[in-house]
Amino acid sequence: MPVKTGSDLSERVRKGDIAAAARAMSVVVDERPEADELSKAFFPYSGRTQKIGLCGPPGAGKSSLAGRLIGFFRKQGLKVGMLAVDPSSPISGGAFLGDRLRIQEHATDSGVFIRSLASRGMIGGVSHTIFGAIHVLEAAGFDKIIVETVGTGQDEVEIGRVADSVVSVTTPQLGDEIQAMKAGVMEIGDFFVVNKADIPGADKAISDLKGALALGRGHAPKPWEPPVLGASAASGEGVAELGRALERHWNFLRQSGEGKRRLREQHREELSLYISRRAYRDAMRRVSDKNLDDLLEHRIDPASLGARILRA
Amino acid sequence: MPVKTGSDLSERVRKGDIAAAARAMSVVVDERPEADELSKAFFPYSGRTQKIGLCGPPGAGKSSLAGRLIGFFRKQGLKVGMLAVDPSSPISGGAFLGDRLRIQEHATDSGVFIRSLASRGMIGGVSHTIFGAIHVLEAAGFDKIIVETVGTGQDEVEIGRVADSVVSVTTPQLGDEIQAMKAGVMEIGDFFVVNKADIPGADKAISDLKGALALGRGHAPKPWEPPVLGASAASGEGVAELGRALERHWNFLRQSGEGKRRLREQHREELSLYISRRAYRDAMRRVSDKNLDDLLEHRIDPASLGARILRA
Repeated sequence: MPVKTGSDLSERVRKGDIAAAARAMSVVVDERPEADELSKAFFPYSGRTQKIGLCGPPGAGKSSLAGRLIGFFRKQGLKVGMLAVDPSSPISGGAFLGDRLRIQEHATDSGVFIRSLASRGMIGGVSHTIFGAIHVLEAAGFDKIIVETVGTGQDEVEIGRVADSVVSVTTPQLGDEIQAMKAGVMEIGDFFVVNKADIPGADKAISDLKGALALGRGHAPKPWEPPVLGASAASGEGVAELGRALERHWNFLRQSGEGKRRLREQHREELSLYISRRAYRDAMRRVSDKNLDDLLEHRIDPASLGARILRA
Repeated sequence: MPVKTGSDLSERVRKGDIAAAARAMSVVVDERPEADELSKAFFPYSGRTQKIGLCGPPGAGKSSLAGRLIGFFRKQGLKVGMLAVDPSSPISGGAFLGDRLRIQEHATDSGVFIRSLASRGMIGGVSHTIFGAIHVLEAAGFDKIIVETVGTGQDEVEIGRVADSVVSVTTPQLGDEIQAMKAGVMEIGDFFVVNKADIPGADKAISDLKGALALGRGHAPKPWEPPVLGASAASGEGVAELGRALERHWNFLRQSGEGKRRLREQHREELSLYISRRAYRDAMRRVSDKNLDDLLEHRIDPASLGARILRA
């Protein structure tokens, strides 16, 4: 029987029906009219699942590493959901290399759900729909959620507002990226992975990163010391170590109160993005022909006009 | 003497001072307090410069092509500004290949201004700051503005809200992308460029795209027939043809009213993004500790709470 109502659909998602989860996710991500209703139904199940952010520059091998991590979790009998918001990801459409295969080996596994989300390139952003997509996976009973996102520097701050555990991935080939990591973004990652650790320069990259971390830390012991790990998505080397470190981090988050603090910030972000998206859509409707004429004729500028519309 | 006030700075930008333009752009892009004041000063000079959007998947060679286009315009004595919001771009930090060099040959040319804008990865987006960055270049007297953005499918719609002339770039190596182009996104581009036209499969890709365009067009003649061009950023082949086609398109836009229609939609987008960004920042301030407690305890969901805060 076809699904008729949002509540039918949400019940099927709750029972772990993969087809229903896929459908619910499309509703949420495309912001169809039933999206809010579904999100309300799913929200009570949120906050219990570890959300793992994989970030790093294009070419760092995030997708391959994600494929390996999925394999690691599956061996433990865990269900894994994955969202790719990386335009250079083989999942999201940047058709690169053989990475695609590493992911596709999980394509027929009903304990794995993989979906790409358009990053909407330059403007607008994925906005709050990333949270909606996560809530679908949470409600459907996935045990781990991986979010793959491109990003260096400032972008990594953003994944920190979505994920509980942030894995910053680089490779020895990307010397500039390693410099950038060393220079300032160390505070973002909970894990630093030097991928492709079987190629020359990996050991030096790892020891450089460890040195920078030690320097940044100073003498004060931190409740969580971000490990620097070598890994090879190609051979699988180091993946189990990363998987176990992720488990340790999840325990740390739950026991220390840091997990709740992060969840709180995630809720703040989700709420603010929801409000801003609603405001954007309202604004699109409220912008009049006269407003646009005024702009075209340079009778007013967007900032002044925007402020005026917001006051109205 | 150091620059003291926004109005000093905007005057220097207006005189074409590159250092001042760089500084003004940082103010606008980082949304510093003086950003609105600067944007107001620059807005009267907007809308006269052709904004060229270069979009396509990672690996299509957009940056190299942009470098070649800059060279083409420079030979005509035109000043060129370029903004890269593509995380896989060598300018934006995806340190790939030798593309970097193709751009860097212009690094010391005072008639060229190149700047990368963080795409802010997954959430939030560059938002309206892309428009602010464009207004700086317009006010500083650049004759052509190139915006490089990653994107396939839906993303290309977004570049269409920023640029006047959209160049959709692909290569024969990216077979899936060519299929996607053929399947549905043909209406977005004003130009389709098959880059790396010196490698096998290019001729077939070009004729496939031409066929799909002819099919999509049907019998009704269109005021602008998007050309399908072969090009090689490596050898420079086809770049002059693209440059001349861009000039034809700019004349078409100005003479047909289509240019004004697009500018109107750009203003609509800029205004809506400005409003939404302001609403987001206001929302971030208005979200109370109690709101977050309520979410953590699942006493309410983000959509219901967001709607309530917006009504208040």
